[in-house]
Amino acid sequence: MTTINNRIEVDLNSDMGEGFGPYRMGDDDAILKIVTSANVACGLHAGDPEIMARTFALAKERGVAIGAHPGFPDLWGFGRRIIPYSTGEIERFVAWQIGAAEALARYAGHRITYVKAHGALGNLTQTDEDVARAIARAIQAVNPSLICMTFSGAVMERVCREMGLDVRSEVFADRAYDEEGHLVPRKVPGSVLHDADEAAARMLRMVREGAIETISGRMIRVPIDTICVHSDTPGAIEMAAKVRRTLEEAGIVVKAFS
Amino acid sequence: MTTINNRIEVDLNSDMGEGFGPYRMGDDDAILKIVTSANVACGLHAGDPEIMARTFALAKERGVAIGAHPGFPDLWGFGRRIIPYSTGEIERFVAWQIGAAEALARYAGHRITYVKAHGALGNLTQTDEDVARAIARAIQAVNPSLICMTFSGAVMERVCREMGLDVRSEVFADRAYDEEGHLVPRKVPGSVLHDADEAAARMLRMVREGAIETISGRMIRVPIDTICVHSDTPGAIEMAAKVRRTLEEAGIVVKAFS
Amino acid sequence: MTTINNRIEVDLNSDMGEGFGPYRMGDDDAILKIVTSANVACGLHAGDPEIMARTFALAKERGVAIGAHPGFPDLWGFGRRIIPYSTGEIERFVAWQIGAAEALARYAGHRITYVKAHGALGNLTQTDEDVARAIARAIQAVNPSLICMTFSGAVMERVCREMGLDVRSEVFADRAYDEEGHLVPRKVPGSVLHDADEAAARMLRMVREGAIETISGRMIRVPIDTICVHSDTPGAIEMAAKVRRTLEEAGIVVKAFS
Amino acid sequence: MTTINNRIEVDLNSDMGEGFGPYRMGDDDAILKIVTSANVACGLHAGDPEIMARTFALAKERGVAIGAHPGFPDLWGFGRRIIPYSTGEIERFVAWQIGAAEALARYAGHRITYVKAHGALGNLTQTDEDVARAIARAIQAVNPSLICMTFSGAVMERVCREMGLDVRSEVFADRAYDEEGHLVPRKVPGSVLHDADEAAARMLRMVREGAIETISGRMIRVPIDTICVHSDTPGAIEMAAKVRRTLEEAGIVVKAFS
Repeated sequence: MTTINNRIEVDLNSDMGEGFGPYRMGDDDAILKIVTSANVACGLHAGDPEIMARTFALAKERGVAIGAHPGFPDLWGFGRRIIPYSTGEIERFVAWQIGAAEALARYAGHRITYVKAHGALGNLTQTDEDVARAIARAIQAVNPSLICMTFSGAVMERVCREMGLDVRSEVFADRAYDEEGHLVPRKVPGSVLHDADEAAARMLRMVREGAIETISGRMIRVPIDTICVHSDTPGAIEMAAKVRRTLEEAGIVVKAFS
Repeated sequence: MTTINNRIEVDLNSDMGEGFGPYRMGDDDAILKIVTSANVACGLHAGDPEIMARTFALAKERGVAIGAHPGFPDLWGFGRRIIPYSTGEIERFVAWQIGAAEALARYAGHRITYVKAHGALGNLTQTDEDVARAIARAIQAVNPSLICMTFSGAVMERVCREMGLDVRSEVFADRAYDEEGHLVPRKVPGSVLHDADEAAARMLRMVREGAIETISGRMIRVPIDTICVHSDTPGAIEMAAKVRRTLEEAGIVVKAFS
Repeated sequence: MTTINNRIEVDLNSDMGEGFGPYRMGDDDAILKIVTSANVACGLHAGDPEIMARTFALAKERGVAIGAHPGFPDLWGFGRRIIPYSTGEIERFVAWQIGAAEALARYAGHRITYVKAHGALGNLTQTDEDVARAIARAIQAVNPSLICMTFSGAVMERVCREMGLDVRSEVFADRAYDEEGHLVPRKVPGSVLHDADEAAARMLRMVREGAIETISGRMIRVPIDTICVHSDTPGAIEMAAKVRRTLEEAGIVVKAFS
Repeated sequence: MTTINNRIEVDLNSDMGEGFGPYRMGDDDAILKIVTSANVACGLHAGDPEIMARTFALAKERGVAIGAHPGFPDLWGFGRRIIPYSTGEIERFVAWQIGAAEALARYAGHRITYVKAHGALGNLTQTDEDVARAIARAIQAVNPSLICMTFSGAVMERVCREMGLDVRSEVFADRAYDEEGHLVPRKVPGSVLHDADEAAARMLRMVREGAIETISGRMIRVPIDTICVHSDTPGAIEMAAKVRRTLEEAGIVVKAFS
């Protein structure tokens, strides 16, 4: 969330380009009409050069900003498992993925402006300082002008500030938060919101106050620069559209931060 | 071959970083003491982020120039088979590999200065104009300041000139040439030179005259900017060292073209 | 087609288990309610141990026969490209896939009764005798009691007979045939039938007469033991159901051949 | 170790077929002249159909017994990392690998007689009962007549007995044992023996007494049916040969248990 002349701005992001070869995941075409930033898989947990180039080109056409979305090299597990790589290895496979994404973005006439870690790798950056530093070092080595997108309240926020990297923080439209401001694990009942109206109203409160709303209703002040929405679950596209409409009707400007 | 104030200069290049995970191919450490340019595999036919970063760092330390060495995505076949990709797909997977290599080179404190296609992909650029154009377009899209390294006399030379790309041409220290100036296929007896002295003497003649020496002894004038040597066959390191020594003793300057 | 006491029998088969990791292809659950034989991908062009075991178990539960469905090792291309393997290599990667499928079938309490080559590999068996022999040799080496399913009229039929393998022949519910009895290539207009009624009526004619109906209406006598239907295109499930209903209403017994 | 008419018998095993595509690991040809059992990688952490078939054929020719050597699906990590698969997933990917190995063994005219888990997966069977049961269930489902080879003293021994599987236990020629009879971790100084004479003499003592000799010289009685030797480290072949010679000179019969 950025307040400029009393005007609140927020970005809307979604993971996409998550297919592989003939496989597809999520409805990229639909979600690209709603979001302002596209996190694009880089080919190791999902994605391939065809899908990456096509997604970048489509984002360009729609005026949507693009970010590299690196994950664990684990197509079988879709980057959702913690694969036991050292932090040095993480640095290098993240650098590899950012470089591949930058190249294909240029090929498609667009430009990567940020990096967001995917799945299990992203989750680690909430609390694991070593992993957060590894990712920050990869960004810094490849292109220090790239913004790092992370969870609101994550240890990654501090790591980026310490290392001089630009950082933006995200909340999830459909995920409940516990009293520490962390995501309630998926297996816990109530961890995932399914009602679009409820999710949209909650997002509006969170963006307006610049605070995470916990499951008990408590507000924890954190930076909120962007909201993550999905396209790969039933009703996800509708929820994303509702979130955007609700914010805009309340006078909030939905636009890419980059 | 470049002649500057009557001084002949030539580059010496070799493929390296061709392992994967725990596997190794060739003696990178030994060959890096001999060559002036290292063609580094980009992770799709061979190589991984660990090997790439380590090879780039070692090349930097030794003052050796580095090139991206993209190939068909085919680890099983080591990039030596023609996989039926369209030219559009070739453009994009080559762009991907160049980007990954540039990123890890920056990570390792070095800088990619050229691109050389590997194995079956490289062979196609001798005569297949569509594939040559695909690779040239990938280079142009990702980084038009990169030099394209190709076979002396290949159709790729003309394609690069037409597209405004800088090009350098190579001959092979250990391969026989037919009367058209093309490589004699490996299965033909006599196609591969095994005698280091003979190979070195032939290279000296070729570099001095700026011409390919065919199997019959005929000289075909072509640009010769760099000589490719190997490190993964018996006696390869010795041959590479002998080639360098022979050239230098004859007053030819062995240095990277970039 | 088998005629027993004037009763015509035919099998209905479909490719399935064609996902990978989190990816899905086709509606296996729906098509398993219609077909009598399931061709299950073996993990190299699609499929993984989880999907294979689950598909085998579900087929068992539904009383559906199962076949190994080996393809080129090419997840990226989904087995639809001819990868330049030698016939010896084809023998061995097909043997590998049959063995993996047999093991997981036993694990799931079911039993592989036939083998059908997938995609580009299957297409080759129509006319390429060397590839047909390679696949036949793989079957014979791993389990000679397995039936080979192939295209009606393919060279593979004769190869199997010569090698003493049991063979069953298939026609495609939704594909047009040319005057030689070969599939009209997909790019040709009219090559794919989209109307379920028309496709079902044509299948009934073909099964009754034991002949392929060409695009001009000519009938070419061939063995027809099984009909291939799909689950991964719009309307495919409806067409498959319509084919089955039409055959059964005409008194044809739809059952697995094994 | 088996004592028949006062004659002590022991098997000598080694991992092999651990290359992939053009890559090689260890000297299979040399070690196949020394050992009596070959543990052959099944294609997911190493190995491919070509290498498997060739290794099985060579083992057949040399009269060496063969075992399936399944590991975590992790070519990059060579099966040496614990990848977070559930025990159900382990069951299925192990079943897959055993099936693939059985098929290619038949193709090569040989027969798999045992299963030995590789690397990180094998290490888990020392103490993790759930993983041990998963592997035992896979063997039982695919072919209950296969013998399970495990570490002397591992929890896997008991699991196999409880599940009615035949089991054989191994000690390592070049690894030190702690006071619990477990392998001293590789990072601890002295964990790996490099002296062939010392290793051979220790093996003779262990086989004669049917006991693991710990680093302090204490003897822990365990079954010893087979000794694992290596081929992929400097001096490994010499050590393996020395172990065999020492045992045979002492009147111990070195032969496959199957």
